Amino acid sequence: MSEDSSSALLTDHYELTMLQGALHSGAAARRSVFEMFARRLPEGRRYGVVAGTGRFLDLLERFRFGPEELDFLAENEVVDEATLNWLAEYRFSGNVWGYGEGDAYFPGSPILVVEATFAEAVILETLALSVYNHDSAIASAASRMSVAAGDRPLIEMGSRRTHERSAVAAARAAYVAGFATSSNLEAGRTYGVPTGGTAAHAFTLLHDSERHAFETQLESMGTGTTLLVDTYDVERAVRHAVELAGPGLGAVRIDSGDLSTTATRVRAQLDGLGATETRILVTGDLDEHSIRALAVAPVDGYGVGTSLVTGSGAPTVSLVYKLVARARGLDHDAPLEPVAKRSVGKPSRGGRKWAVRRLDEKGIATTEEVYPHDPGRVVGGRPLLRPLVADGEIVGRETVQDARERHRATVAELPEEALRTSRGDTALPTIFL
Amino acid sequence: MSEDSSSALLTDHYELTMLQGALHSGAAARRSVFEMFARRLPEGRRYGVVAGTGRFLDLLERFRFGPEELDFLAENEVVDEATLNWLAEYRFSGNVWGYGEGDAYFPGSPILVVEATFAEAVILETLALSVYNHDSAIASAASRMSVAAGDRPLIEMGSRRTHERSAVAAARAAYVAGFATSSNLEAGRTYGVPTGGTAAHAFTLLHDSERHAFETQLESMGTGTTLLVDTYDVERAVRHAVELAGPGLGAVRIDSGDLSTTATRVRAQLDGLGATETRILVTGDLDEHSIRALAVAPVDGYGVGTSLVTGSGAPTVSLVYKLVARARGLDHDAPLEPVAKRSVGKPSRGGRKWAVRRLDEKGIATTEEVYPHDPGRVVGGRPLLRPLVADGEIVGRETVQDARERHRATVAELPEEALRTSRGDTALPTIFL
Repeated sequence: MSEDSSSALLTDHYELTMLQGALHSGAAARRSVFEMFARRLPEGRRYGVVAGTGRFLDLLERFRFGPEELDFLAENEVVDEATLNWLAEYRFSGNVWGYGEGDAYFPGSPILVVEATFAEAVILETLALSVYNHDSAIASAASRMSVAAGDRPLIEMGSRRTHERSAVAAARAAYVAGFATSSNLEAGRTYGVPTGGTAAHAFTLLHDSERHAFETQLESMGTGTTLLVDTYDVERAVRHAVELAGPGLGAVRIDSGDLSTTATRVRAQLDGLGATETRILVTGDLDEHSIRALAVAPVDGYGVGTSLVTGSGAPTVSLVYKLVARARGLDHDAPLEPVAKRSVGKPSRGGRKWAVRRLDEKGIATTEEVYPHDPGRVVGGRPLLRPLVADGEIVGRETVQDARERHRATVAELPEEALRTSRGDTALPTIFL
Repeated sequence: MSEDSSSALLTDHYELTMLQGALHSGAAARRSVFEMFARRLPEGRRYGVVAGTGRFLDLLERFRFGPEELDFLAENEVVDEATLNWLAEYRFSGNVWGYGEGDAYFPGSPILVVEATFAEAVILETLALSVYNHDSAIASAASRMSVAAGDRPLIEMGSRRTHERSAVAAARAAYVAGFATSSNLEAGRTYGVPTGGTAAHAFTLLHDSERHAFETQLESMGTGTTLLVDTYDVERAVRHAVELAGPGLGAVRIDSGDLSTTATRVRAQLDGLGATETRILVTGDLDEHSIRALAVAPVDGYGVGTSLVTGSGAPTVSLVYKLVARARGLDHDAPLEPVAKRSVGKPSRGGRKWAVRRLDEKGIATTEEVYPHDPGRVVGGRPLLRPLVADGEIVGRETVQDARERHRATVAELPEEALRTSRGDTALPTIFL
């Protein structure tokens, strides 16, 4: 994907018609605050993980209505001429704050705060939600898998089970949330995610014998490679693998059957053959629950596909982007007034918000505090919003490694019960002050 | 997204290492057949819908390893020099057949058949699966919603709940499977999907009063617009809406509360105010089940978001891409030999396949027949594979409208029990002849 292509039409039709209406009434110029938050976590989840921040900033920079975008809107009469003229000049000139990528979030956490004119902020709704809803769903699931895997590396290999471009974002989000590598080459190129992989069953089936396939792979890739041993008969395959590679064989992969039983048997066989350093990788419909269940099995790494890219039961995390305040009038200095839809069962709190994670004396998180004003420095609290865009300029860029490191530190700060994979309640209460 | 950017790295690392191994052994040149199929439908589903064909052909055309792709692979030592040289020259030169886009499929239906050298076919695995697994998941869910909605139009509005590019593909797949419009502007530009939408709650909240927001929208967009009436008080909003627009008001939208009760009350109110032609659109966490439940309510159209883009419980459809046959030797004329992994509980049938949908005398589908040879013309049967690529040249391009029309005809051909939204068994048995 060309990095300079426009992201402007990744937008819902109604954002542009709202813009047209607001330009008509003059309210388009009102200073406004939109916030992104989740009303709840996916059922049974104890925490969520923010991801997508870096991707959103890249896409924001490419949110430009060029001739091709404007022609489409004009030909299809999506909006009127005045609106097209406004869009042609569009550059986001407001301010954005957000939770650091990789940080945890809870119900009501204001993970993104956009302050600009109504016009400038409203048209970012779909793009922002698409990016954060997808990437946070993946990172939230990935984080639970990383916790379940402990020190054993996780390999992301779900590209084939999701849209070809979601796959790249999913590999990135999984890496932020602790995965070691991905199968996705584009994620390697675009985001520097380490990639890996060796062979599928097709490679064995292609050759006249499994032995010949193994020989070929070892010659071509060296004895450090991973041989897939479950195409025909695992016991025979492991014997041939060590015969051909010697005890320096890198790893074997098991992709079917009862993984725990098979891994135990294969470990004993490998050890018996002197291949005590040869690792055992397992793949095949793994999720955080089966990873945890395999903790006692002699397994050295997990490959995770479908459950990762589908958010392990929660492919989206219901983030919303809501107008929470707007100026009383058109003046840039007009005071902001909180606004909120009247809702039953859908808590919406008007007014701009600031957030702090309260930590106890041991550095363990105890509450998510949401303030209606900037609380300044809070003793025993970690401020959660960082500046991402200042007067239209992107100031919050980080590397994927930075986000990965923040995620590691954030998880270390969570109370022990947050890290259970069983269904449970939100690990921290959100307190609106 | 630039239409000419390369899709070649939307590929799993192991496909290229398998290629390297196969080039090393010489088996890369063996004529091979890979097939894509689903071992089962998502739980409780009665049929699946094939989608993604058109997108796959577009991406296949852009599957080229240019200098940027090769540099990445070289710098990261993904494959050796011989493999890089092979990739630099890569053009798919084989043959592909596939089910028509929009057609139904069942367990074991060979929805894509790729015949080429092993090398040329193996590296398409991830791209093909990503496209078909995503798009078919969406189309399969969308089809059930279309059936449930009957003649009432469905509006796709799930972009915000999925990755920003999946959103475009989802809008396309939903349109293939019978949706009337989408909110996604990029889907309008790229695929000609009709787009629509008017306003969100933010538009009402922006203005000093709901009345002023309605006035503005009506002035700017005309009385045929859709007013969102549930920001504060539905009854008052409907009264104001008709006062301001007159009885020619296009539609009102209800996005919260008990949709059936509210729609019934609003219908009575609108009729009482003389706005008998004003339509009622409902949105808010709808899926095929709630759509069916609303069949008796006075509703004129449904907006569907989350459940559409997440495949209504099945965000992926477990399609696999398997080597089913390869030549006995390297000769182009060497006979094909069936191959299959030895599997317990994972039916894999070796050998190239052909498929026919058997119809009864009334034109209702009765069985999915899968042959190990080309059955030629089958009386009372509809052949399901059509040529997509012939000797590397794309021959199977169609418009999205063609696929939409095929879907309509296919659904009309299914037995009545296939069209129930309740959980059930596969509607047609697949018979392997």
